[in-house]
Amino acid sequence: MTKYAIGIDFGTESGRAVLVDVADGREVATSVYTYSHGVIDKVLPGSGVRLEPDWALQDPEDYLRTFQNTVPAVLKESGVKPGDVIGLGVDFTACTMLPVKADGTPLCVLPEFRARPHAWVKLWKHHAAQPEADKINTTARNMNQGWLDRYGGKISSEWFFSKVLQILDEAPEIYAAADRMLEATDWVIWQLTGVETRNSCTAGYKALWSKREGFPDKAYFKSLDPGLENVVDEKMTRVIQPIGNRAGELTEQAARWTGLKPGTAVAIANVDAHVAVPAVGVTKPGSMVMIMGTSICHMVLGDEEHVVPGMCGCVEDGIIPGFFGYEAGQSCVGDHFAWFVENCIPVAYEREAKERGLDVHQLLEEKASQLKPGESGLLALDWWNGNRSVLVDVDLTGLLLGATLATRAEEIYRALIEATAYGTRVIVDTFQQHGVPIHELVACGGLPEKNKLLMQIYADVTGREIKVSASKQAPALGAAMFGAVAAGGAAGGYDSIYAAAQNMAHLKAETFKPIPENQKVYAKLFGEYLRLHDYFGRGENNVMKTLKQIKSEVKHAG
Amino acid sequence: MTKYAIGIDFGTESGRAVLVDVADGREVATSVYTYSHGVIDKVLPGSGVRLEPDWALQDPEDYLRTFQNTVPAVLKESGVKPGDVIGLGVDFTACTMLPVKADGTPLCVLPEFRARPHAWVKLWKHHAAQPEADKINTTARNMNQGWLDRYGGKISSEWFFSKVLQILDEAPEIYAAADRMLEATDWVIWQLTGVETRNSCTAGYKALWSKREGFPDKAYFKSLDPGLENVVDEKMTRVIQPIGNRAGELTEQAARWTGLKPGTAVAIANVDAHVAVPAVGVTKPGSMVMIMGTSICHMVLGDEEHVVPGMCGCVEDGIIPGFFGYEAGQSCVGDHFAWFVENCIPVAYEREAKERGLDVHQLLEEKASQLKPGESGLLALDWWNGNRSVLVDVDLTGLLLGATLATRAEEIYRALIEATAYGTRVIVDTFQQHGVPIHELVACGGLPEKNKLLMQIYADVTGREIKVSASKQAPALGAAMFGAVAAGGAAGGYDSIYAAAQNMAHLKAETFKPIPENQKVYAKLFGEYLRLHDYFGRGENNVMKTLKQIKSEVKHAG
Repeated sequence: MTKYAIGIDFGTESGRAVLVDVADGREVATSVYTYSHGVIDKVLPGSGVRLEPDWALQDPEDYLRTFQNTVPAVLKESGVKPGDVIGLGVDFTACTMLPVKADGTPLCVLPEFRARPHAWVKLWKHHAAQPEADKINTTARNMNQGWLDRYGGKISSEWFFSKVLQILDEAPEIYAAADRMLEATDWVIWQLTGVETRNSCTAGYKALWSKREGFPDKAYFKSLDPGLENVVDEKMTRVIQPIGNRAGELTEQAARWTGLKPGTAVAIANVDAHVAVPAVGVTKPGSMVMIMGTSICHMVLGDEEHVVPGMCGCVEDGIIPGFFGYEAGQSCVGDHFAWFVENCIPVAYEREAKERGLDVHQLLEEKASQLKPGESGLLALDWWNGNRSVLVDVDLTGLLLGATLATRAEEIYRALIEATAYGTRVIVDTFQQHGVPIHELVACGGLPEKNKLLMQIYADVTGREIKVSASKQAPALGAAMFGAVAAGGAAGGYDSIYAAAQNMAHLKAETFKPIPENQKVYAKLFGEYLRLHDYFGRGENNVMKTLKQIKSEVKHAG
Repeated sequence: MTKYAIGIDFGTESGRAVLVDVADGREVATSVYTYSHGVIDKVLPGSGVRLEPDWALQDPEDYLRTFQNTVPAVLKESGVKPGDVIGLGVDFTACTMLPVKADGTPLCVLPEFRARPHAWVKLWKHHAAQPEADKINTTARNMNQGWLDRYGGKISSEWFFSKVLQILDEAPEIYAAADRMLEATDWVIWQLTGVETRNSCTAGYKALWSKREGFPDKAYFKSLDPGLENVVDEKMTRVIQPIGNRAGELTEQAARWTGLKPGTAVAIANVDAHVAVPAVGVTKPGSMVMIMGTSICHMVLGDEEHVVPGMCGCVEDGIIPGFFGYEAGQSCVGDHFAWFVENCIPVAYEREAKERGLDVHQLLEEKASQLKPGESGLLALDWWNGNRSVLVDVDLTGLLLGATLATRAEEIYRALIEATAYGTRVIVDTFQQHGVPIHELVACGGLPEKNKLLMQIYADVTGREIKVSASKQAPALGAAMFGAVAAGGAAGGYDSIYAAAQNMAHLKAETFKPIPENQKVYAKLFGEYLRLHDYFGRGENNVMKTLKQIKSEVKHAG
């Protein structure tokens, strides 16, 4: 009898369920639910309360509606019987978190908190907690907190305690009313199983937890704010489950939502980027997985814990149980090209694309493909949205150098692609230099499908072969694999994520191999990139920050 | 009786005559002749001989056709009687030069040389003599030639001896056949008067001559090429006339071409940028005249000779007799904005401009005007076409720094304007620091008419008031003023260019004054510009040259 697992991927605008054949990972049916409230960044639904700039919220009921809409849809589309679905897994954006009551009820669904922004889900890209992040960083440095090294020396305003502290700062009564604070990915698993669990991935990457040291101590939290001293014991838990574990089984209620059988196995919650690693078949050190879209997440497994400067995090059991999972990132990749196309494309190109039935990205890729490495004379620093790794500095900005009156749009476009490839190479080299070897790259996400030129440039610049996921929805596939592991081998699933990955993950036959003559030119160009990277990024010339400072003074003077 | 003078301005694509009232400089009539062969940069007319890249030639008969077409036209349009036109002056692009026979016949009109590119007029922007310029510079440095200091330490491929040496190198039989080599501006005066004269302006700025030292010595020319040893005595003359002198009178033949009276006074030849100085009323030190178009020429008068590093030239009697005339330049100003509009303007802006009946430059100026100094966070180096002053380096390239995903086209546009203003300030400051004071700026040319935002930014960045020429055709007006001086006071003209300028030159009532709060912000931004200018421009980081080197290697490998 064929068995199936379902993976549900909770994105920024929508949720997606994929029904997968457990034997070989074949994706049998897919269904997408677009959140009815999407990203809430202007006005609170119902009350009409206006939000401040940099806020980004979500409605937790949209997550339940995702279950209610997509799971029945994939069952219907595939004709698979509910009894043949043996396991369910989810992955989520992170840190996306919310305050709830002891029974799991989100504060924002209670009438008394409906009009209070801090009662809602704070989405990963809620950026209003920067003052709190600054305080967390300064206090950690002052108190010599060792955990800071695991996060490249700086934590982000997007992370869990930045958001918690913002609630305490700005809405102490909501903080007080919250019995629990948790990641949305753990919350949806709670809704499916009736059991509150916490996963090692978000605990490690977003909430400063480590398997060996646990959370930062109470004295540290007390220094941040006396009210925060007991946050872990009062609002969270010290019991953190490694990913790959079984969280529980579907409740009667969740079975009614989904059309699945009560008792179906449910995996411990997971995160979109991290779950993609086994989905592309990577379960051991040596490969760097790149989830390539608007930004890039870089995931690497290691046997040992190393301090690699400027990485987003190193978490034991954070990606694959039994390994240290390293995460790095580039904050502006697909976004970069979208910016360029929106702001810098001459009318003639737009017209040519239209006449030839191409989109402008395709036309630019075609024109840029006709250039040789080094031919444009251009060099860029890929910091249009700051630098996430290894400089960990949001205040760095973009640079383009080498322009002449003969410079054309496709040359700039190619220079921007090359700049992001140099950025990846800095990350690869930094891992290598600090004891985390990287022999090959494995890519998934939207970009590898869309831009072959980009993939070839990454291979040429990094000097490494790039393999590409066969699945266009790697995170959902990865979540389904964890569902199959939650079910276990005896139920027709797998006893480990290694076994699941071996059978269910697939790569395309076509790979991108470095072209030696391109590598030679890119080696020279990368040397020049690195010199500019260090000059502007490591304090020798802080002009980018000075300009931001002047910009801020000018705005506030006006 | 009202007296008139005619100024004829020979540009790159056309020649223009302006008939001017000598008493007050009123421009009574204008006529333009577009050269029938324009810029010859692909194929030689008649023979169809193909030209190499970087060549740019002209047909000397187009200059005569300019006289034949425009002067009769302004007489007709104005109704002025030929006898009331007391003087004629010309100005020309430079160095634009040609080889001729002893009687002034251009070699290219002789059947035996018609198909020989080197027999034609080499236009100022003929850039194929770079190897010769390199040899001239290297040889001069090796032989410690003191004159090199007067030209910022480097002479250009555009200049007279670069072009002469290219003829000798590549077509020695043409060199041999040429009885004379001279600037086109001197040649047209010869055609009008029947007398060969040479003007101090082109001799000084383009042919290494100075009033006190004359030309470089024979030993130097011999070192360049034994065949060049006697170039001055054989092909040129050591008699150089200061501008402001009378070259002679119209011949019978030239009177027939123009419809003027034989015997009409004709001024010594002049150059377009230089003749604009008296045309905006500047006849003494302290003012910098900026001729602002695709590029900017900066002209300053000084009482003494100073070595100002990185200037294009310092020539006694070069601009106004009795003063040292300093020239500096920025190679990419209007060209910069044209490049931007052609290559980097999003479709939405093009559409908005069309809907509102604006051209895109106007729309960008409007949007950029709404930004405050420093608000964009952008900073650029204005080297899209190299740096003419003070770095004198054609291999420098453009830089844009500070871009984010929120950066918009009007912000980049404004940053490019600001960069050219910083470039002007570097020139102003360098003059000041080396003993040539500059108290105010006086602008003429196309840009001041078109872009008020740009003018205000220049005032704010340089901290100096900018006055603007009342004439839209300052060079032609300046040429007419020299025509009135050639006629002399007794004939109803003037006895000196000072007197002519006092009566005939006019400025607009509206000036651009620095706004103190903008100056404060720009002072900070200029500090950052200067640091980047020196870092990339003075050898600390030669990445721009390295990229050009790589580009050249890649192209030649292909």
